[in-house]
Amino acid sequence: MKNRSRIATSLFVFALSPLAIASAPVVNQGITEAEVLAGQKAWCQALVDISTTHQRNGQAAAKALAEKVIDAAYGYQMGPVLFKPTLTVAPQTFRTTRDGALAYFVGGNAAFPNDTGFALKGWSGCEIANAAVFIAGDKATTMGNVNLTGPDGKITSVDKTWGFVKDDKGALRIVVHHSSLPFSGS
Amino acid sequence: MKNRSRIATSLFVFALSPLAIASAPVVNQGITEAEVLAGQKAWCQALVDISTTHQRNGQAAAKALAEKVIDAAYGYQMGPVLFKPTLTVAPQTFRTTRDGALAYFVGGNAAFPNDTGFALKGWSGCEIANAAVFIAGDKATTMGNVNLTGPDGKITSVDKTWGFVKDDKGALRIVVHHSSLPFSGS
Amino acid sequence: MKNRSRIATSLFVFALSPLAIASAPVVNQGITEAEVLAGQKAWCQALVDISTTHQRNGQAAAKALAEKVIDAAYGYQMGPVLFKPTLTVAPQTFRTTRDGALAYFVGGNAAFPNDTGFALKGWSGCEIANAAVFIAGDKATTMGNVNLTGPDGKITSVDKTWGFVKDDKGALRIVVHHSSLPFSGS
Amino acid sequence: MKNRSRIATSLFVFALSPLAIASAPVVNQGITEAEVLAGQKAWCQALVDISTTHQRNGQAAAKALAEKVIDAAYGYQMGPVLFKPTLTVAPQTFRTTRDGALAYFVGGNAAFPNDTGFALKGWSGCEIANAAVFIAGDKATTMGNVNLTGPDGKITSVDKTWGFVKDDKGALRIVVHHSSLPFSGS
Repeated sequence: MKNRSRIATSLFVFALSPLAIASAPVVNQGITEAEVLAGQKAWCQALVDISTTHQRNGQAAAKALAEKVIDAAYGYQMGPVLFKPTLTVAPQTFRTTRDGALAYFVGGNAAFPNDTGFALKGWSGCEIANAAVFIAGDKATTMGNVNLTGPDGKITSVDKTWGFVKDDKGALRIVVHHSSLPFSGS
Repeated sequence: MKNRSRIATSLFVFALSPLAIASAPVVNQGITEAEVLAGQKAWCQALVDISTTHQRNGQAAAKALAEKVIDAAYGYQMGPVLFKPTLTVAPQTFRTTRDGALAYFVGGNAAFPNDTGFALKGWSGCEIANAAVFIAGDKATTMGNVNLTGPDGKITSVDKTWGFVKDDKGALRIVVHHSSLPFSGS
Repeated sequence: MKNRSRIATSLFVFALSPLAIASAPVVNQGITEAEVLAGQKAWCQALVDISTTHQRNGQAAAKALAEKVIDAAYGYQMGPVLFKPTLTVAPQTFRTTRDGALAYFVGGNAAFPNDTGFALKGWSGCEIANAAVFIAGDKATTMGNVNLTGPDGKITSVDKTWGFVKDDKGALRIVVHHSSLPFSGS
Repeated sequence: MKNRSRIATSLFVFALSPLAIASAPVVNQGITEAEVLAGQKAWCQALVDISTTHQRNGQAAAKALAEKVIDAAYGYQMGPVLFKPTLTVAPQTFRTTRDGALAYFVGGNAAFPNDTGFALKGWSGCEIANAAVFIAGDKATTMGNVNLTGPDGKITSVDKTWGFVKDDKGALRIVVHHSSLPFSGS
């Protein structure tokens, strides 16, 4: 290799900046466990916030907030979201559109006549108890219970699966959401 | 660039095998829609097969088949699977282990006393009606109804989410499975 | 399961729209081989376009076009791009910044004094001969020769690796680009 | 929701095991920066080990070790690897097969007559100086210099891109490897 002596010279330049070598920039598009847990907490907080906003300022204010939450936390701008809310029934079980999600959370949409607004039920608490988390690099799925505190202080536990991806800005977005009441055992 | 004439010569060699150039080998680890649909059908067929085996050859034979199915179709060898079966209840709602999945499908495990064997219920048909499919490159998620024909000919529809990944051999494996009865509407 | 009769009823509704079931919407973020080949061809065309623009309208016009190309085809907005151009030397071998890429293609940046503008060399043709393509779901890498026709009609062949990802809008972006002249064999 | 009281009861069970909830198992298939750096160091160490083995025990022993290294560190069992070694020339520039990689590292294969064995050149040191790292979840790419210390103590610096994926067992495997001598500047 004829290049050796020249290369050795150019390496001398590098030898003057070892710290620069150590700090090679890293682009990391992976999802961390901490980001997943934060994304779950953000969903819980948003649910309580919409409930609180509804109680204080009415349905229109709750709806405006819900729109912000959906646009920030779900992936409807990427296409259909795989959303099976807790209380929906056929033939509108699956809410693959933003309109369907919004109707589920705050009601008031004649196209979804069964929706009374899940987020308007006076939730004051929301805790997550994961059964397992699967992080497939830049996608993540969680499964477990979400325990909701209602206006009477009673707790409703739902079985919930969330699938998250990261968007170009690095924000987690929900692209899968399957929620169901526990099997009633009979 | 001193290399020009040599390169031109070597390109002549390439010019003799244009078809070889056109057929550059492609490793494609992505999941196609067809593979996803085939994976769903395979799950359905396996359920009916286990039911049929149970009726003809008894629980032990059904269990042996169920073990094969679980080992071939789920991802328990990768770690915990996010599996929420249709009929499980707390504190054994989530079956993140192979043992828990096997007990759910064929029962007979004292550690899971509520399990009577979902796959032993005499299912004779299993049809899939997807609401949406999300293929995130080498991971895929489906959501929709699975409609099961029982021994009396009646159909039970469940809301189901499946998450698939590909293993090193290119086989789809279920790493997420959330199944629930439809909300009873009251 | 108490739900059977109700479910059977709701299924009747589905039965009226079998085509809707068959056409479940699919979000597919995977990269196809065709998209990869198109992305490669687009790079080639852009190189020839910048060369042609330079000859007709001068360096400023070529630079303006190169900026558009870089912003549309590379991933600098996601962070550092792993770009090792064909002709760069230490200590400016790697062009992890947009400025470094632009300087390489069109020169005229005092901060990169060795850059005379690779895209200004009068390229009139650019052909791709892949050795292999690796599609890892929503990321893809190609390796092979890119054969460039210079102003004198002679061909320069370079060994080139490109790594592509898809952005939120589904457009391919180059995040890895390693180009080198063939080993001179001595 | 009729389930409330039952759910509250079952939650009491959970309340007895808060630590179990906190320690939900996590499957994480992502690649960390530390794993990438370890994978690079392992390649360097393997190169030096093969050289040392060659000096002490001859070509056959070096070849046996190289086979182990290739089988453990590269992804040839997944299909063609995108490997452009430093010193190869057309028409055998790209070594997409295991045989081609092995011949490059240790020579002795009549089908690759130009290969004299890159790993047999008496390398005693191998240091990595990354320019940037791109971690796309469960895939990662590095770019930078690898600085090799030869038998005469002189250093050869190469420009190198490595692409890694994880196999089912969580081990990193090289599926892209583009290495080139620096442009000679003339």
